Amino acid sequence: MTLIADNFIGFKNSAKGDKTFQSFAPAKNEYLPEKFTQATQEEFDTAIALAEKAFPIFRETSYEQRAKFLDAIADEIMALGDALIERCSAESGLPVARITGERGRTCGQLKLFAQLLRDGWWLDARIDTAQPDRQPLPKSDIRRMLIPLGPVAVYGASNFPLAFSTAGGDTASALAAGCPVIVKSHSSHPGTNALVSSAIAKAAQATGMPEGVFSSVYLNHEHSVKLVENPVIKAVGFTGSRHVGMTLFNAANARPEPIPVYAEMSAINPVVLMENALQTQKEKIAKALSGSVTMGVGQFCTNPGLVLMIESEASKAFIALFAGEFVNTVPGTMLNKNICKAYAHGIDALNGAGATLVAEAATAANADKAEARPSAFSTTASAFLSNKAFTEEVFGPATLFVLCKDAAELHSVLNSLEGQLTATVHAADGDKEALLPVVSIITQKAGRVIYGGYPTGVEVCHSMVHGGPFPSTSNAASTSVGTGAILRFVRPVAFQDFPDDLLPDALKRDNPLNILRLVDGNWTKDKA
Amino acid sequence: MTLIADNFIGFKNSAKGDKTFQSFAPAKNEYLPEKFTQATQEEFDTAIALAEKAFPIFRETSYEQRAKFLDAIADEIMALGDALIERCSAESGLPVARITGERGRTCGQLKLFAQLLRDGWWLDARIDTAQPDRQPLPKSDIRRMLIPLGPVAVYGASNFPLAFSTAGGDTASALAAGCPVIVKSHSSHPGTNALVSSAIAKAAQATGMPEGVFSSVYLNHEHSVKLVENPVIKAVGFTGSRHVGMTLFNAANARPEPIPVYAEMSAINPVVLMENALQTQKEKIAKALSGSVTMGVGQFCTNPGLVLMIESEASKAFIALFAGEFVNTVPGTMLNKNICKAYAHGIDALNGAGATLVAEAATAANADKAEARPSAFSTTASAFLSNKAFTEEVFGPATLFVLCKDAAELHSVLNSLEGQLTATVHAADGDKEALLPVVSIITQKAGRVIYGGYPTGVEVCHSMVHGGPFPSTSNAASTSVGTGAILRFVRPVAFQDFPDDLLPDALKRDNPLNILRLVDGNWTKDKA
Repeated sequence: MTLIADNFIGFKNSAKGDKTFQSFAPAKNEYLPEKFTQATQEEFDTAIALAEKAFPIFRETSYEQRAKFLDAIADEIMALGDALIERCSAESGLPVARITGERGRTCGQLKLFAQLLRDGWWLDARIDTAQPDRQPLPKSDIRRMLIPLGPVAVYGASNFPLAFSTAGGDTASALAAGCPVIVKSHSSHPGTNALVSSAIAKAAQATGMPEGVFSSVYLNHEHSVKLVENPVIKAVGFTGSRHVGMTLFNAANARPEPIPVYAEMSAINPVVLMENALQTQKEKIAKALSGSVTMGVGQFCTNPGLVLMIESEASKAFIALFAGEFVNTVPGTMLNKNICKAYAHGIDALNGAGATLVAEAATAANADKAEARPSAFSTTASAFLSNKAFTEEVFGPATLFVLCKDAAELHSVLNSLEGQLTATVHAADGDKEALLPVVSIITQKAGRVIYGGYPTGVEVCHSMVHGGPFPSTSNAASTSVGTGAILRFVRPVAFQDFPDDLLPDALKRDNPLNILRLVDGNWTKDKA
Repeated sequence: MTLIADNFIGFKNSAKGDKTFQSFAPAKNEYLPEKFTQATQEEFDTAIALAEKAFPIFRETSYEQRAKFLDAIADEIMALGDALIERCSAESGLPVARITGERGRTCGQLKLFAQLLRDGWWLDARIDTAQPDRQPLPKSDIRRMLIPLGPVAVYGASNFPLAFSTAGGDTASALAAGCPVIVKSHSSHPGTNALVSSAIAKAAQATGMPEGVFSSVYLNHEHSVKLVENPVIKAVGFTGSRHVGMTLFNAANARPEPIPVYAEMSAINPVVLMENALQTQKEKIAKALSGSVTMGVGQFCTNPGLVLMIESEASKAFIALFAGEFVNTVPGTMLNKNICKAYAHGIDALNGAGATLVAEAATAANADKAEARPSAFSTTASAFLSNKAFTEEVFGPATLFVLCKDAAELHSVLNSLEGQLTATVHAADGDKEALLPVVSIITQKAGRVIYGGYPTGVEVCHSMVHGGPFPSTSNAASTSVGTGAILRFVRPVAFQDFPDDLLPDALKRDNPLNILRLVDGNWTKDKA
């Protein structure tokens, strides 16, 4: 498997620029040999022009053709074999087992979107039939469905080099919707991007997709913002920091034609441990929570960064148990040196704000391997409420226990939080009365609420919501995981009194796609 | 029916301020006697505080309770009887018949949302059941549905004093979603607002809704923007000018927590007349198009402001026929003096840009009655493409014919347009080949495409899309008319591994609401 270090501009590889960079293997503390070339203005313009040209063709492909394209991408990714796993592991510092699992998820979600295209109900087809004799005015025949927005810019994420990057959820859902995609490769894993881009390009050609349906480019910061500003781009998918997410969000809204930015940015994912759960399940929760905080070196958007309890004998006993588990965790290599540095700053900030160290991994971190040392802190609710430093996400294997005096204080802390991707409660018999207001508050704060579990691990399915109120995402009505993600890249259009032969198949009277449609208020597959 | 000229702050009437204003009857050229009082800062704050307090109660009401509330609003509006019709007609200059029709639409859409709440499918309930034995990891039980965003600010529209104002589509859909509403009354029809507000307040109390579920206030410009900026407000519904819409949109995005603004702003609603339609249906189209341009004194967002044709003998004959119809139209009173002035400026701008007058109403407008004189212009495609003045919406009974040399020029003009609420084609046998690219382009440009009809007249139903790409709206994925409008004010939330008694009814295993749900990929009303 030869790695092509060029930009993928449509079906061509191109490296006309003179600005090159290498990827860095954090666990080995060394640069990998290949030189990747930042796209020139001309290459950038070509990628845009090809996407624009591809859109009218791509949007007219049948859903079955698009499904075959997505299936083929998954197959081509699998065909990359160990070369992809090894490269991705080297560039991300993530172990082979994790990357292998992430590849499975990536291919699984491509195939899930292919299935969605075949099912067709996602088109939200709605038909209100004509009533030519209605008084005082006749009623027209009106049929609506969802259609693609146009070319989408996708920004690769550092923490999911496969599942949220080149062929990740944003790309899969945008392509499923009928939108060409331009991926801005993440600078941490260009080799992974190159391999996956070659798989997508191959799949596109094999399934007869138009050139420009997919490009991937290496961009500097200025061009990264210009991608959002380009009038051809009609929507943006992003997973990363709040700072960069908001830069893209603001650029998109300042355009002459504002466009939606789906940025998944920041969360501390509160976990509330109720009194009876602490009393009856403390060993189980201590062990599993320690595992959730440190899983993947804590580099998940859903990492539980905040644990809330009402102070009691049980909470003291729980923290002691947790500390006993936590010292046995081990430092791990982070995704890149900047993230490792940011983690150290985050830990410093917690210390500086007066948080008490509850426990840390027994072994110190090895700076040469960009390691992070798992660290757990505690503070009081009143301190938490009076110092914004405690509410900042510390990206990595850290968590903060917040001890509340009573239920009122617990509610105050929960109410003080910004929007979250997830919120979790652990409860047991006897907790119900105290639990109800907690569930009510966290349901308002988060996109996903979890009972008796842990927020890490995001199932790719129809019902998943990986989103939430600002700043966890820039658009609370969206999810970036699961089939609902396709809704980010479409809009409804209504056809009034159209003759059947001019209607899209989804809306034709004979229902040739055999999809579920809302006909005069009833969901049915009948002709209409 | 006594008119209460105060602000409606929750269930109380309040007029503590010293800044008053009166409504103006444009057809009579006189002020109406009642003095309305702008809300003070304290009244503003109270309305916000009541909405915040009402939300946790309102969102927990059952869908049946909310449906009863909406039904009761419709009944109370009808109970206002002729007092409402007369007041609304006086304040808007719109004739009694039109206002009576608009009242029917307003009540009809309230009842349609009540029915939607009872049907329940709009909740988009999705369930993926647990697979505890799945390898390598067990699968959780995940259930998602839509929940309300929080208090919504609604800005009354000038051109629909009932259907897009105090109890209009924005209010109806927000209340249906479970969001308290604060209405900023339009300054042109405060008396209509007062009557409708009293109906809503009565309905809220009769159906046991919490105080603060609805308030309506008279605000100056500064407070109008502050309403969007207030952290309690979570979404905005607006219909009006592009300038004001963008002011609200920008204010919402500049908040520490940005919120969605659903602004319906500007459209010129192109109509394409194909050659064979011009040849075979010219009389019918000329008459109906003239009627559509002048209906309601042209004061519809969907008014056909642009008519495109390829030059031919048939197009010449058509324009002559149209002119013959159009001279027989009559000037009409506009909604207010500012709109009347803006119409005059719009006509001046078309003249200034070199447009040719095709026809105007035989009678001149009476300035004392704030009348607009219907006016139709023509220009060439090349002139249109080189002068932005031709693309500006002229709000009122005006339209512009654009004569294209050939199909390529027609496509260029269509491609040059900004986003539109609607786009229309008229075609006949023989037009099909030329029609396909036209349909393809206009489907990309508009929220609703119409075949053989006219854009005025927006059916309130499940399949309606009254929205479209920017700048027709600030959010192309939304509609402000029809049941889809409820989706503007909700977001999805997923419940993971929740015990049944903690789940909302919509997601409980026994499906007590008997609603359609997506269970493991299949839409069903079965238990799950």
